[in-house]
Amino acid sequence: MAEKKPARKVAKKAAVKKPGAANGAAKKAAAPAKTKSSVDLAAVRTEIDGIDRQIEALISERARWAQQVGRAKGKLAAAVDYYRPEREAQVLRQVVDRNDGPLANEVLVRLFREIMSACLAQQEPLRIGFLGPEGTFSQQAVYKHFGHSAKALPLASVEEVFDEVAAGHADFGVVPVENSGQGTIQSTLDMFLSSPLMICGEVELRVHQYLMSRTGNIEDVERVYSHALSLAQCRSWLRQHLAGAEKQAVVSNAEAARRARNADDAAAIAGKNAGHVYGLKVIAGPIEDRPDNTTRFLVIGRELFPPSGHDRTSLLVTVQDQPGALYKVLEPLARHGVSMNRIESRPAHGRLWEYAFFIDVEGHAEEAPLSAALAEMQASGQKVRLLGAYPVAIP
Amino acid sequence: MAEKKPARKVAKKAAVKKPGAANGAAKKAAAPAKTKSSVDLAAVRTEIDGIDRQIEALISERARWAQQVGRAKGKLAAAVDYYRPEREAQVLRQVVDRNDGPLANEVLVRLFREIMSACLAQQEPLRIGFLGPEGTFSQQAVYKHFGHSAKALPLASVEEVFDEVAAGHADFGVVPVENSGQGTIQSTLDMFLSSPLMICGEVELRVHQYLMSRTGNIEDVERVYSHALSLAQCRSWLRQHLAGAEKQAVVSNAEAARRARNADDAAAIAGKNAGHVYGLKVIAGPIEDRPDNTTRFLVIGRELFPPSGHDRTSLLVTVQDQPGALYKVLEPLARHGVSMNRIESRPAHGRLWEYAFFIDVEGHAEEAPLSAALAEMQASGQKVRLLGAYPVAIP
Repeated sequence: MAEKKPARKVAKKAAVKKPGAANGAAKKAAAPAKTKSSVDLAAVRTEIDGIDRQIEALISERARWAQQVGRAKGKLAAAVDYYRPEREAQVLRQVVDRNDGPLANEVLVRLFREIMSACLAQQEPLRIGFLGPEGTFSQQAVYKHFGHSAKALPLASVEEVFDEVAAGHADFGVVPVENSGQGTIQSTLDMFLSSPLMICGEVELRVHQYLMSRTGNIEDVERVYSHALSLAQCRSWLRQHLAGAEKQAVVSNAEAARRARNADDAAAIAGKNAGHVYGLKVIAGPIEDRPDNTTRFLVIGRELFPPSGHDRTSLLVTVQDQPGALYKVLEPLARHGVSMNRIESRPAHGRLWEYAFFIDVEGHAEEAPLSAALAEMQASGQKVRLLGAYPVAIP
Repeated sequence: MAEKKPARKVAKKAAVKKPGAANGAAKKAAAPAKTKSSVDLAAVRTEIDGIDRQIEALISERARWAQQVGRAKGKLAAAVDYYRPEREAQVLRQVVDRNDGPLANEVLVRLFREIMSACLAQQEPLRIGFLGPEGTFSQQAVYKHFGHSAKALPLASVEEVFDEVAAGHADFGVVPVENSGQGTIQSTLDMFLSSPLMICGEVELRVHQYLMSRTGNIEDVERVYSHALSLAQCRSWLRQHLAGAEKQAVVSNAEAARRARNADDAAAIAGKNAGHVYGLKVIAGPIEDRPDNTTRFLVIGRELFPPSGHDRTSLLVTVQDQPGALYKVLEPLARHGVSMNRIESRPAHGRLWEYAFFIDVEGHAEEAPLSAALAEMQASGQKVRLLGAYPVAIP
């Protein structure tokens, strides 16, 4: 972030020079490469230099436009003042739609996340709270969603992430909420029962689990520590390979690794990172039962953002425990043709005989048909709270 | 890396469309933004969409050119077969030379590192061994130098990094060698006395030190653990604030944090990461005496690369301990006008009365005037080993 050149020149210098010519030359030089096996390395480098010059000019021009937006919002606008998740989602979907190789979609998405992140961080970077320590899956989720120009702040608990965002010490927070194999992390959802924060986005991350121990020998393992969710993710593997060992659920995978470090007959299931931090050796892995094991994170913030064109809305509905209560809640959604992605019931915080439902539906709360259904639900006196409406995760 | 679209189409679809027009429009739309304080957000977004389309087409075209180079080297060429550090350094220097804002040089360098990294990793990514655990400064140095498409392999010791690279399990290694305030990490240099590996690059990284403890209160601190180098980096701060406390040097800052975790009267000096991993609270920081505190890392590999145009050469010279021995070594360098950046003497491994000198000089071993000086040194029977010739670090 440090040194910044002062001059903001008009787009003149950034103008792209003869890209047509560069492309024409590209085609000419590429042809021989396919017929004979040697490539004229010098010619290729000249081509790439031309491409890089254009990319750089365009990135700089993009950064100047971003400055314009920032200026419009006020002299000292911080990144959070003009960060628009719905707009970023649209940009990334266009990147995926346009892509016809050779780079994988996820690689291009990552590069554009970084470019947007750099353009946004020109004044002051976004500060993102996450469940620490550094090196966790949560931190990976932060960088995947916000790029490396954002500032990731490791915090001690999910509760602390909510507190820091609410207090404005962090602009957004990233908290784990669901695993593809094992379902919802209830404690995260429960935070919304008492917190006024909103959901501004979601991130999906592939995760891999490893069995690790001090000795690295499976014969030594008589106890396996891990978070309950991770134990569940590896259930069949454990049944096949460590049926006799005691499984012990602990508060986090990092804690599991810490405990495994203290005894030769113990092992931990955790991400590789946690194992390395505590000097454990990998016995086996990845050992999760589903090869598509994915953790979903929520991005939490203080406001609601406009639609991106492909959104999801999260609702918190509180009902009295009486026959047909849930049915009445769902009726307007069904009638308006709103698809439901998920529903989770939870006892409401401290109120006897009241239940809370966390409901995810397709679409944005401000757009039809959902907006109409929500209006009806509210008009009929139901306790419906909008937790957030946000772009569906981009792979 | 996962999904890849199959078709490798010719540059046609990637051709940049009317960039001139886009830039022209950019200038038009930018003008009103400067006179009145509101910006036509929709117009700006259209501009940025046009820019993004061009950037994406150019990155894809660049990736296709990189594939050409890979193919020329053989059907199954891994990244290591066509990774050229001297070429990457040239590309990044051009990026810096061309930059006239608004993004800082270091931001653009990072984006181009990532673009090159993605283009290179299309077949199989580079595997880079480093002194683990994850989250260390060494890992930051890996990503700074190789981009996030490289695969970073955390290893237990500097020795293991050398071993894994020598055995071909890692393509390159990244090891700390020097701190701006405190000088050389002798144990790293000493590895070259017995290893045949070469130096292929250098990375410089700003580092910050924090005083951390379990309680977070400076009044409780009676002992301070840290690596000797880190203790030295914070000497004046410690003298001012903790003159009475016992300073104890341990093997790494991570180990210091681990120890501080076990006692209320102990603190550690380490990077923030290490403190978070062990649940410590920050008492103060950054506390390093020099605000430009920088650690230098070496990139080690198995071969020598060609000149990049702005290089440094590292030599290992062994001499008998006799009067004038060093003088004789330096004479050809001086006569050919070769500048010396650094010299370190070390007792040679296991040989009585022999000394080893690690010498860094300006220029590449294969280019004049250094090549001539080296030829003379070798001709005169001196034991001169070329440790590596590599691009000077790009900030």
